[in-house]
Amino acid sequence: MLHLVIAEAEIELVPEPIRDHPAVVNYARKRGKRPDEVLLDSTYHHAALKKLTDGERRGRPDIVHICLLNALESIANKEGKLRVYVHTRNDEVIYIKPETRIPRNYNRFVGLMESLFKNRVVPKDLGLLRMEEKSLEALIKEINPDGVFVMHEKGTFTKPVDFGKRLASLENPAVIVGGFPHGEFKGKILGEKISIYKASLMAWTVVNETIINFEHWVP
Amino acid sequence: MLHLVIAEAEIELVPEPIRDHPAVVNYARKRGKRPDEVLLDSTYHHAALKKLTDGERRGRPDIVHICLLNALESIANKEGKLRVYVHTRNDEVIYIKPETRIPRNYNRFVGLMESLFKNRVVPKDLGLLRMEEKSLEALIKEINPDGVFVMHEKGTFTKPVDFGKRLASLENPAVIVGGFPHGEFKGKILGEKISIYKASLMAWTVVNETIINFEHWVP
Repeated sequence: MLHLVIAEAEIELVPEPIRDHPAVVNYARKRGKRPDEVLLDSTYHHAALKKLTDGERRGRPDIVHICLLNALESIANKEGKLRVYVHTRNDEVIYIKPETRIPRNYNRFVGLMESLFKNRVVPKDLGLLRMEEKSLEALIKEINPDGVFVMHEKGTFTKPVDFGKRLASLENPAVIVGGFPHGEFKGKILGEKISIYKASLMAWTVVNETIINFEHWVP
Repeated sequence: MLHLVIAEAEIELVPEPIRDHPAVVNYARKRGKRPDEVLLDSTYHHAALKKLTDGERRGRPDIVHICLLNALESIANKEGKLRVYVHTRNDEVIYIKPETRIPRNYNRFVGLMESLFKNRVVPKDLGLLRMEEKSLEALIKEINPDGVFVMHEKGTFTKPVDFGKRLASLENPAVIVGGFPHGEFKGKILGEKISIYKASLMAWTVVNETIINFEHWVP
């Protein structure tokens, strides 16, 4: 089983210091919600983000959305060989059942995530998505993998196909992909650093390369 | 060079017969546009779509968006080995320069496409995206590939890795992926039908599998 962790993902509710910023207040009002109930989104809260630490990388639920659509619709997931987790910048972990059909529409996805942040589980009956306060380190400990790989521009260069082979040679490998637009992991690096390309790649490209190259070697 | 065609993509402006439907009128008003200027979108125009032929599959710009984000951010594209085209249900072809950075945010992507349908080229100076009236058959003729493959549930089963090898053995293969949510191609099948999995896959999954398995075999 391949365990894929989208780590330090830039997904969070609008944080307290900017809840009264006009960009946030207007956005929330248009959506009929309170400022503390809506996801931070760099597309709409750009002006407000400038006032936050790491403002240039925060508010990117779109990255999580695209990574999840790719991972959950992959052949590896349909074959029952993949588990996907989202770890957030605020040390929450989202557990996703493999049969989950993530909304294709971005705005619906945002609504679903807002409901998840509020209720900690959606939908209540099926519990397809569940959120817990948990560090990346605690999540990895819980997965108890027999190999941990951190996808990193400055890691050891490994051809994607060779990386897939290494993953497939393990029983329970974990692959950590940064769920942020650019820059470095902020937390401790918890495994072997791997680079699959000479330049930086989008998070969803790394997700696709990891899963599909793993698939090759799995019977 | 691999030529990837998202074909019969369900992307179009709201068609004439439903421009006065309340679901459309309200949606356009909220966005400050006229009903004939906005993209048909199944998420918002569901009630109106019931009145259209093929209503159950139309209005899916989200599929085009996800396919383009994956294709354009792929390693194959960064290496200059990929060209991506979108052919629409109304026989338009969208040409996309490989260096194009598609908006990550869905709503911005929709705005960009609306501008493309109106102006036929965006942005005007760089011409990163360009739209022409053209059939799929005419596009394939223009590409002049040395192999044409149509990704199809009922095609010859070929393991993704073997399909990638076949693509890489050609100079200019073209791969046609349906840009619709389910069902069959409506037009003529223009090449060899290939199936890479025992069940149906989302368009973007087929895009990812095609590109990444092609990459393996390209030096």
